[in-house]
Amino acid sequence: MVIVGGGFGGLYAAKALAREPVRVTLLDKTNHHTFQPLLYQVATAGLNPGDIAVPIRRALRKAENVTVLMGEVTRIEVDARRVHLEDGASIDYDYVILATGATHSYFGHDEFAPFAPGLKTIDDGLLVRQRIYLAYEEAERETDERKRRALLTFVVVGGGPTGVEMAGALAEIARKTLPREFRRIDPSKAKVILLEGGDRVLASYVPALSEKAQKQLEQLGVEVRTRALATAIDADGVIVEGKKIASKTVIWAAGVAASPLARSLGVPLDKVGRAIVEPDLSIPGHAEVFVVGDLAHIEQGGNPLPGVAQVAIQSAKCAADNIARTLDGRPRRPFHYKDKGNMATIGKAAAVADLGFAKLAGFFAWLAWAVIHVLFLIGFKNRVIVMVQWAWGYFTQDRGSRLIHGMVHEREAEPPVLPSRRGAELPVPAATVPQLSPAQPSPASAAASRSD
Amino acid sequence: MVIVGGGFGGLYAAKALAREPVRVTLLDKTNHHTFQPLLYQVATAGLNPGDIAVPIRRALRKAENVTVLMGEVTRIEVDARRVHLEDGASIDYDYVILATGATHSYFGHDEFAPFAPGLKTIDDGLLVRQRIYLAYEEAERETDERKRRALLTFVVVGGGPTGVEMAGALAEIARKTLPREFRRIDPSKAKVILLEGGDRVLASYVPALSEKAQKQLEQLGVEVRTRALATAIDADGVIVEGKKIASKTVIWAAGVAASPLARSLGVPLDKVGRAIVEPDLSIPGHAEVFVVGDLAHIEQGGNPLPGVAQVAIQSAKCAADNIARTLDGRPRRPFHYKDKGNMATIGKAAAVADLGFAKLAGFFAWLAWAVIHVLFLIGFKNRVIVMVQWAWGYFTQDRGSRLIHGMVHEREAEPPVLPSRRGAELPVPAATVPQLSPAQPSPASAAASRSD
Repeated sequence: MVIVGGGFGGLYAAKALAREPVRVTLLDKTNHHTFQPLLYQVATAGLNPGDIAVPIRRALRKAENVTVLMGEVTRIEVDARRVHLEDGASIDYDYVILATGATHSYFGHDEFAPFAPGLKTIDDGLLVRQRIYLAYEEAERETDERKRRALLTFVVVGGGPTGVEMAGALAEIARKTLPREFRRIDPSKAKVILLEGGDRVLASYVPALSEKAQKQLEQLGVEVRTRALATAIDADGVIVEGKKIASKTVIWAAGVAASPLARSLGVPLDKVGRAIVEPDLSIPGHAEVFVVGDLAHIEQGGNPLPGVAQVAIQSAKCAADNIARTLDGRPRRPFHYKDKGNMATIGKAAAVADLGFAKLAGFFAWLAWAVIHVLFLIGFKNRVIVMVQWAWGYFTQDRGSRLIHGMVHEREAEPPVLPSRRGAELPVPAATVPQLSPAQPSPASAAASRSD
Repeated sequence: MVIVGGGFGGLYAAKALAREPVRVTLLDKTNHHTFQPLLYQVATAGLNPGDIAVPIRRALRKAENVTVLMGEVTRIEVDARRVHLEDGASIDYDYVILATGATHSYFGHDEFAPFAPGLKTIDDGLLVRQRIYLAYEEAERETDERKRRALLTFVVVGGGPTGVEMAGALAEIARKTLPREFRRIDPSKAKVILLEGGDRVLASYVPALSEKAQKQLEQLGVEVRTRALATAIDADGVIVEGKKIASKTVIWAAGVAASPLARSLGVPLDKVGRAIVEPDLSIPGHAEVFVVGDLAHIEQGGNPLPGVAQVAIQSAKCAADNIARTLDGRPRRPFHYKDKGNMATIGKAAAVADLGFAKLAGFFAWLAWAVIHVLFLIGFKNRVIVMVQWAWGYFTQDRGSRLIHGMVHEREAEPPVLPSRRGAELPVPAATVPQLSPAQPSPASAAASRSD
């Protein structure tokens, strides 16, 4: 049988089937499982890519009946029971579990994409990291005050957990990480704006926690705007209610859409493209095809379940169990999701957590968040390293992995930014660095000021 | 004054000038200082990029008279005392220290470049990492035995420290890191070949250590070929003495050339393009232009100094000191290099070290290597993290950061590899996995074997 996708759903399905008398092939377009809940930390350079990702075949090393292959599945031929790969190869299956998850959606405004990257993959994270830190680098070189303002204005679109976490981290970078490192700009003057279309951030939480989250964000210096819809996004910024916010760095955390793979199933999809599944998580008319995690539309108590790791993990285990039951001739069981709570971190010692039995905000919510996220990381080493990085960051506010690399990658998306200033004359620091501690006059500085 | 380059030379020059009454602008095309001696560890996924690199402005945060700007210098106008940047901007200087180092050279065979990447930058490291681990991923999918052999043959061109370290790490990946993770291939059967044009590896070391290094490499399973010149390299492999070595992964560690910036100085260069400097490290006829590190040809005892970190650091400090002396009206001092020894690591507990007073090989050389390299890392956090990663790797043979990301980056260099197998039919694992522990017959596996 075949599992498509190496995220939470695919990985936990494979682990569950490791004990069963089946041969499993797991396909993923990358070679690694990404711990998406911490992706925003890679984007803001709190963590290294290697800290939150693990090679899929490493995670499944002990599952000897599982073969991991790297390849992108483009289409499922349900009647022929065959999956087709991007490179023309194909694999037949008797049972298949689809767990290709979701990607970000621009609500039909795909023209926003190059100007407002979202956060789903390690590469997304590195691209966003590059945008953020390049903006500061350019601002340090920029002499036009208006352009400099735009470079130091960061807009996050979408007030869900990802948006809240990104905005909080961006504010911390500006206020706590960078200030002493620049000579011409004052990073702490950077503007971080969080745009939410609805009337509160973290809409999936109880209103009290949304309120606390907004307060904590504002304490960090984030400008939170609710009922604010971005109607246009381009290289110069965002338009909200007809008003332009000049910004060179916009991050998209607003919408998600199911991976296009669902379309090839020929079954009813919901409005975000998720396959509407039966209670046993198979699709109508094909008891051998299971869909789990963000790719599945699972109703519970009349509402669809949210696209969170816990839903992916629990539904994957249920699908695997239903396959095992079918092989044993036992009846399948309907999926029932057990909500273990939700949490979002906002900054150093700031977070909100809804654990059902308790609703926390502030330091203890942050502590709970940190402990749980470290425990869920796959691989002991990653846990140790991430703890060291966090402890370090907690006490020093430093973000060590602030590297801008893979520039070629960025150039794919749009022309590099620095060359846009072609022809501009760079004044020597002496001319334009009021905040510099005055150096004693010397032949050197005297000579330096010759140049303007 | 201006410093060009944020490597060992530029960074140590800026640190030395932090105490002087001058205003310094440091320019680098990236935002980070890379600890090049450990780059091969990023390429082989022993370390994360963030572990061996630090933002330049972070490293110089306390040097308040130093302004760090990100930008690529393309040309020095020595008569106008002006540096020109890629984007058309320029900066005037009274004194300038050039420390743009070296890049790899293909000895006039630039057509080798796309097929044999070298190791100089973080991006190089990630590209090589991607090639190495993609080769194993493809081999696991490959059904043609001949093609599979080529995918599992790794060739390192050049037997200097970098080549020796790469070859050793490649052998460890094959023999110790990957074996239990694949189902169709046996990574421990992978071939690692080190090609050296001269008659011994580590030619800059005493012959006894070259011999020991070769022995240690061979014990790890590396095939060491001396007096073996690569006359052609393409997508299918390397030609050595008219014989083809079929390989999909070739790494270039053979030659270096000075950064092209030296050409714009209008002074005599040596055969690898380094500027031949005066004893005080300035260039002939321009006492205000200093060249240090790999960019400078510095004679000592009739021989040019090697392109190692220690030469860069010591020459940078000397150039900075000579500028300070000139400003104080004191005479300049000629540069004298103090050799602190050389070491190269080969694998777990295997290395050679020439400390002058002692020549070590094996475990103690490795220990000395590890301690010294950790101590030289910039930033306390990096040291802690690297020690954790090494300790983990030492005891588990694991390489946690084995991520293949930035695929777009690779596509720039050449078409992606997987699609080249377009149309190939993937058999289901059942058909081709002898080493799989036999699963009990079940509807699942029965159905699976239907497909071939």
